[in-house]
Amino acid sequence: MKRSAQLVVVAMCLSPWLSATAQFAKPEDAVKYRQSAMFIQGQHFGRLAAMANGRVPYDAGAAAANAEVVASIARLPWAAYGPGTEGGKAKPEIWTESAKFKELGDKLTADTGKLVDASKAGNLDALKVAVQSVGETCKSCHDTFRSK
Amino acid sequence: MKRSAQLVVVAMCLSPWLSATAQFAKPEDAVKYRQSAMFIQGQHFGRLAAMANGRVPYDAGAAAANAEVVASIARLPWAAYGPGTEGGKAKPEIWTESAKFKELGDKLTADTGKLVDASKAGNLDALKVAVQSVGETCKSCHDTFRSK
Repeated sequence: MKRSAQLVVVAMCLSPWLSATAQFAKPEDAVKYRQSAMFIQGQHFGRLAAMANGRVPYDAGAAAANAEVVASIARLPWAAYGPGTEGGKAKPEIWTESAKFKELGDKLTADTGKLVDASKAGNLDALKVAVQSVGETCKSCHDTFRSK
Repeated sequence: MKRSAQLVVVAMCLSPWLSATAQFAKPEDAVKYRQSAMFIQGQHFGRLAAMANGRVPYDAGAAAANAEVVASIARLPWAAYGPGTEGGKAKPEIWTESAKFKELGDKLTADTGKLVDASKAGNLDALKVAVQSVGETCKSCHDTFRSK
């Protein structure tokens, strides 16, 4: 299959998921947008990881609030990886292995949903399991799709 | 009143609102966090403003989705203006006129709540009113508290 045809197929497969792509005025905006979302997510997830690891005391209310932010921000970055938005630490594999990238994005959505449930259960052990699962999904995606 | 005592009073007044302040490892993280939140918010609000101004066709579903993101992100930046987090485009007035700053932050929360309601009503005229109101609050705060 020719490269142009491959790109069309990729674009078609991704289009529902990347429906907001065309809404970025410039590719740099898409890069900045996804980096912004990742940074916010990292800050809130870091607070949960600190509780899970015992570095800060467990606080059920703070855990639930942070988990809600993580789950809601986790839905955002994907629309900002449309065709032509290469840049930042995004590796070319995001576009050449888009099915795997999407699978990990979907897994993060599912995992962060479970993180919210665990945080609302008010149970540190449940939180630890959910934090570990989200952390592994983050790492798996970063290892493959993010430059050092 | 001595400056140190004034700062304590300011910190006490802000503490419930800025309860997450201590959770930033470095002041630069707080600056980057609030800039990230403002950028994401601006992208989604820009899409609503484009609909309200007729630059893009009205799409009730997209309007509701964008309004939800604006309202949820609008709650985030305030915790990142704690004492010692000067930087970026933040003017010193944020800390010296903190009551006014908080008032505008609270107004944004209220306005973005109305934006969600208007977007869900599926009515372009209602959306226009809500977009204008949010836009005025953004501008009012930026005029006073953001450097050029």
